[in-house]
Amino acid sequence: MSLLVVGSVGYDDVETPFDKIEKALGGSATYISLAASYFSAPINMVGVVGEDFKDTDIKMLEAHNINLDGLEIVKGGKTFRYGCKYQYDLNVRDTLFTHLNVFENFDPVIPDKWKNNSFLLLGNILPSLQLKVIEQMKGLRLMVCDTMNLWINTMLDDLLVVLSKVDMLIINDSEARLLANEPNLIKAAKIIREFGPKYLIIKKGEHGALLFGEDSIFSAPAYPLESIFDPTGAGDAFAGGFAGYLHKTQDLSFDNIKKAVIYGSAMASFSVGKFSTKGLENLSNLEIHDRYIEFRELSSF
Amino acid sequence: MSLLVVGSVGYDDVETPFDKIEKALGGSATYISLAASYFSAPINMVGVVGEDFKDTDIKMLEAHNINLDGLEIVKGGKTFRYGCKYQYDLNVRDTLFTHLNVFENFDPVIPDKWKNNSFLLLGNILPSLQLKVIEQMKGLRLMVCDTMNLWINTMLDDLLVVLSKVDMLIINDSEARLLANEPNLIKAAKIIREFGPKYLIIKKGEHGALLFGEDSIFSAPAYPLESIFDPTGAGDAFAGGFAGYLHKTQDLSFDNIKKAVIYGSAMASFSVGKFSTKGLENLSNLEIHDRYIEFRELSSF
Repeated sequence: MSLLVVGSVGYDDVETPFDKIEKALGGSATYISLAASYFSAPINMVGVVGEDFKDTDIKMLEAHNINLDGLEIVKGGKTFRYGCKYQYDLNVRDTLFTHLNVFENFDPVIPDKWKNNSFLLLGNILPSLQLKVIEQMKGLRLMVCDTMNLWINTMLDDLLVVLSKVDMLIINDSEARLLANEPNLIKAAKIIREFGPKYLIIKKGEHGALLFGEDSIFSAPAYPLESIFDPTGAGDAFAGGFAGYLHKTQDLSFDNIKKAVIYGSAMASFSVGKFSTKGLENLSNLEIHDRYIEFRELSSF
Repeated sequence: MSLLVVGSVGYDDVETPFDKIEKALGGSATYISLAASYFSAPINMVGVVGEDFKDTDIKMLEAHNINLDGLEIVKGGKTFRYGCKYQYDLNVRDTLFTHLNVFENFDPVIPDKWKNNSFLLLGNILPSLQLKVIEQMKGLRLMVCDTMNLWINTMLDDLLVVLSKVDMLIINDSEARLLANEPNLIKAAKIIREFGPKYLIIKKGEHGALLFGEDSIFSAPAYPLESIFDPTGAGDAFAGGFAGYLHKTQDLSFDNIKKAVIYGSAMASFSVGKFSTKGLENLSNLEIHDRYIEFRELSSF
């Protein structure tokens, strides 16, 4: 069984109060795959880039045992570009530009060899594209997906079809309130789980994350970070660590999903410590394990 | 050693999207004392009310082993009145009116018998009044205080003197950011602890609470409440449960302070379940213990 990741791959311009970076590797599939690569190998990635996609980035991803057979490189095309600026408190992000480029015509094609018996993680792309991916799969063991405010506001019908098919949904708190049209997160979670997903994970940034199952709730702390250099990709790093750990352990008990939430939180905490994907490129298993233990110390009483 | 509580005692008009109540018992000293009363007895309360203060409220407080020898009843005076309205998401509170009445000339006098060897909890009152209380005390064993945005904005000098003297400060996240002038809560906590308090507790409402000590941080979850009937007094109920448990156990190790944070969170979760102080009036020790266990299940992995 393989871990299949479908999402965006792009280059980001990011400005924070501390620094500025241009044309840095980004995209949901990139962050997810890198974070997951510390738990499972290989990670099978499906996405699209242009001819300008750097060879050094290909090499870096492959060095993390990420199989790029599903990464379409469009001749003469340009890679998806995104620019944003974070304000002083880093919770407010202003989008400076979005150039979809080759991503505008992204039509995800899952290689035949990956269609069977997969663990599928659908990054945040158009719900209709998520559906196209789901329709190509055979014998899925687990399907986890992400989405965003934009699709909740503009593509709700498609999104609800996706939600009726997935096992787990990972979204942030404002998305959960919007999707359920309910300010109380506990009530919102009940409403969203009725849309389909058996498990719901609500990411709350500096306030940690909540996991909702049938009759159980788990509250994960946030890692106490004094310096957040670049919040971009934190949610995807969470999803990657989460799914990577679940895929590695093949244990879907609530107790093990809790642990996956902590590993997801750990990967997010590494991701925001450096610009772009740098925080996920050179980790050791020991560092990840130590951070897991720190999460336990932080919340045990 | 006794637990001494100084703060406001008043009557509140509260309107929420669910219901409305008029002239209901409130005030920081009231909520704190009631919550603490489940852990320690007696609780010594210092405050001021007018002649309109109801005999039934006196009796209810005394039935919780709250000693009212320090409650001044001003002849011909009117009790402090406060009116507020909560909006749909309950995180936004609009103040409708504040009639200080007898509270305007509150000059807290600590009975001689309570001045020695006390565990002092200073509810949210003017920092200059908190100082007046501190100056009357002899042989304090522990001093915990609360404050609010208004005093941070208008009485910072006095407040900083208070902070240089107290052992523990309990505030909410927006107050912490304001007091430290720093959006990152982990950095803010460092700055605030340099003002004096050895321990800082930051309450985050639906996101739980953080405890900061010398080299340690503890993240407490919030109890997953679907229905919050009245958020008024939740912070005071937290402070009361927290201090009550510490006073009962007489153990100031970080591990025990963590437990106190959970008991504080438990009392806050009971408080918001009913209007006014009703949620704190008829609890059993078993209910409190069960909720403590629920907090453990919620956060353990």
